[in-house]
Amino acid sequence: MNFGLVARVLGNLLLIEGAVLTIPLGMSWYCRERSAVLGFLLSMGIMGLLGLFLSNIPVKSQRLKAREAISIVTLGWVVVSLFAALPMVLSGAVPSFADAFFEAVSGLTTTGASALRNIESLPKGILLWRSLLHWLGGMGILVLTLAILPTLGVVGFQVFKAESPGPAPDKFTPRIAATSKILYTIYGLLTLIILAAVRAAGVSWFESFILAFGTVGTGGFGIHSDSLAGWSGNNQLIFTLAGAMLLAGVNFSLYYDLFKGRWKQVFSNTELRWYLAIMALSVLGISLNLYGRVYGSVGETVKQAWFHVSSVMTTTGYATTDFDLWPSFSKGVLFLLMFVGASAGSTSGSVKVVRLVVWAKVVKREISRVLHPQAAKPVIINGRVMPAEVVQGVVSFLLLYFAVFALGSLVISLEGLDLLSSMSAVAATLGNIGVGLGAVGPKPGFAGLSSASKLFLSFLMLLGRLELFTMLAVMSPRFWRE
Amino acid sequence: MNFGLVARVLGNLLLIEGAVLTIPLGMSWYCRERSAVLGFLLSMGIMGLLGLFLSNIPVKSQRLKAREAISIVTLGWVVVSLFAALPMVLSGAVPSFADAFFEAVSGLTTTGASALRNIESLPKGILLWRSLLHWLGGMGILVLTLAILPTLGVVGFQVFKAESPGPAPDKFTPRIAATSKILYTIYGLLTLIILAAVRAAGVSWFESFILAFGTVGTGGFGIHSDSLAGWSGNNQLIFTLAGAMLLAGVNFSLYYDLFKGRWKQVFSNTELRWYLAIMALSVLGISLNLYGRVYGSVGETVKQAWFHVSSVMTTTGYATTDFDLWPSFSKGVLFLLMFVGASAGSTSGSVKVVRLVVWAKVVKREISRVLHPQAAKPVIINGRVMPAEVVQGVVSFLLLYFAVFALGSLVISLEGLDLLSSMSAVAATLGNIGVGLGAVGPKPGFAGLSSASKLFLSFLMLLGRLELFTMLAVMSPRFWRE
Repeated sequence: MNFGLVARVLGNLLLIEGAVLTIPLGMSWYCRERSAVLGFLLSMGIMGLLGLFLSNIPVKSQRLKAREAISIVTLGWVVVSLFAALPMVLSGAVPSFADAFFEAVSGLTTTGASALRNIESLPKGILLWRSLLHWLGGMGILVLTLAILPTLGVVGFQVFKAESPGPAPDKFTPRIAATSKILYTIYGLLTLIILAAVRAAGVSWFESFILAFGTVGTGGFGIHSDSLAGWSGNNQLIFTLAGAMLLAGVNFSLYYDLFKGRWKQVFSNTELRWYLAIMALSVLGISLNLYGRVYGSVGETVKQAWFHVSSVMTTTGYATTDFDLWPSFSKGVLFLLMFVGASAGSTSGSVKVVRLVVWAKVVKREISRVLHPQAAKPVIINGRVMPAEVVQGVVSFLLLYFAVFALGSLVISLEGLDLLSSMSAVAATLGNIGVGLGAVGPKPGFAGLSSASKLFLSFLMLLGRLELFTMLAVMSPRFWRE
Repeated sequence: MNFGLVARVLGNLLLIEGAVLTIPLGMSWYCRERSAVLGFLLSMGIMGLLGLFLSNIPVKSQRLKAREAISIVTLGWVVVSLFAALPMVLSGAVPSFADAFFEAVSGLTTTGASALRNIESLPKGILLWRSLLHWLGGMGILVLTLAILPTLGVVGFQVFKAESPGPAPDKFTPRIAATSKILYTIYGLLTLIILAAVRAAGVSWFESFILAFGTVGTGGFGIHSDSLAGWSGNNQLIFTLAGAMLLAGVNFSLYYDLFKGRWKQVFSNTELRWYLAIMALSVLGISLNLYGRVYGSVGETVKQAWFHVSSVMTTTGYATTDFDLWPSFSKGVLFLLMFVGASAGSTSGSVKVVRLVVWAKVVKREISRVLHPQAAKPVIINGRVMPAEVVQGVVSFLLLYFAVFALGSLVISLEGLDLLSSMSAVAATLGNIGVGLGAVGPKPGFAGLSSASKLFLSFLMLLGRLELFTMLAVMSPRFWRE
């Protein structure tokens, strides 16, 4: 293991993180939030010193192998989260470290679950920092999954691989840099478009930024304790956000294809078609269930149905109403969507639609194998045969996802929450959604949980964000021994 | 498709079923239950006539191919269930056909979920018939999975294949007959042992038969509305039943090995070890959770924990107390056990431990693949490499099981039950367990559901009993077209 190289990269990450803190620092300065300013400055000092120290550790070799890449990815996410919590604690805004760490992880993993009460009373600088974490985390996961890992050939991210945009030169670094640049541009443009659209719907500049960051990163942090309930009457905003979330859940390499004029390739994309079909079907089902029971007009029914389907499926987690009060079927659809997620290569979390497609095709193949045991039909996605080891990887991912979900729910049930709340708390964090049902529904949120549960759920958010395998591999003793 | 052969076998099944009706008929005659006697006689007449007609349809060829075997297995289970409901309806004991069909399917699939209220008021002949269905269904599934299907090479039952007991001659029929004879003997002996042990615990002869049939078939029908709550104070009986259920959940081919003196082979059996380990761990976890909260003494705690773990894990479904009132963690463990089941090659339903072992090994392999993408480690069970297509079959089974569970829960949620109740109703029927949580917990049972839901859940019981694939293959139009 090339520890020097790992330390250097982590040091650089800390330096970048410290530098980004100038943005919320400026906000707090402008709003004269004394303690927040102090908290930001102190945090920047600590990050700067530690970052400088780490990035000056002598490095024997510049060669980046799979083992180093995995360590950097996993440790990087943990370290950046730990230090992102620092200004919240040091400013006194979030006294409990467990709460601050939960909040930081929730931000960076673009989960959007909040452990805090009275969000309205937080300094604006801290609120901006939380939402900025969504934006950074979203960009981080895009670059990681579409540029860095496919190039390094790290196993476990194969579903993202085939679609990687950008040129294909021989050297790793130039290729990563070129692809990243494309992704930065798309991500930035989408953020600006959403920002403008939200602002046009009559939202203040400050909250427009918050909502744009939360939407494009499929995060879901807001600046009100009741999420977006206050905006429920603003139809323009609600439809804008529902559409914006949908856009953020599309594989970003398809935007690149679109830009290159490859229309046919985009609209024949298997995952995109399934993504839109599942969303449409869910909206239809929930609308039929809600119309006449919860909402009187068709327009309001479809608005609420689409907004929450889009919110949960893209793993954003905004809510304009307490959908925990909806009838069982509608809640059931939302609960199932927590295990779907949006597209691979987007900022969304959870299982991702493409894995669901593989799931369906594997099962269908096995049913036809009952009569034709010898027929070994391949799994075809986007007109191409999916290699057997990728199918195996996807299937193993699904099985691991359900195992972590089941055992995680059991751990959380020790809190004394009812089972459905325990299950949805795990589904909402492991899938980076941020909103659950029952005791962790849109109204109560995650503030009522114990510190132990918050730390455990923070771990699940990171595990889900890093697609399970990478993090578990790092946690095995064998990883460090060899 | 050799329709003649299929019809002939179905006709013979009906004739056998009609003949078996003499047993409950005798019971009702002895107890002077007039309408039940009439119901049984009428049913026997109908079954006899239809059976004779079908079994005399001219058969072109005696060749039994996979397609015919699958049709016979699936249609056989449906037809026998339909006619098993007949005496319940014709005797007037169960006026609704949906209820009677649910009850018959629940009996034959050894599920044990009851759609009836006031079970105490039913004629004894009908009660005996219900429980006899457990016994017949249990034997049916043993012979099917350990003798018939492995010999015919029907895909989808591979997990049972390796363990098939008996000699291995060239011809199919003698081999099936020989293996079946061994299974009948073991099954009969186990029934007698349980019968004697239950009787020794102070239960009446009638109820001893009911409990022996319900235990050895891992069914769970009782003769009281509150399941076994009335026996909760009889420690000898409760421990006897807990142990008897455990024995019924062991792969029956291991009993054959034991009889042949192959001790080492039995005690080194991977599935048996995992089965006992999961049961022990679950009892420990629930005991720690219940002790001091629900029960004051260690003895009572362990008794209740072991009994219900054994009941749910072996998919029997007896309850001596309303465990729906237990704390979340204990309920969570029971809920998870609904997705475990006991051993392949036993009368139990659900996923089966051996598939869980494959699940764990596949996931473990994938984690180590993160660092060693080229290493293609095989899955080893009982010291032998599991063929890749069997692993694929197991994995596909798991994925299909979860898909049916998820979509089935959504269907049941249309009843208006809360989500956890909907989920456990599906888990309890698909897994042939018979008892769920909440609105379908030990107290309320399944009586409160609509006829539509009862029919849907009956379908799930059959689907689960036939290990999903076979039945779904028969339901595909392609099956009949080719």
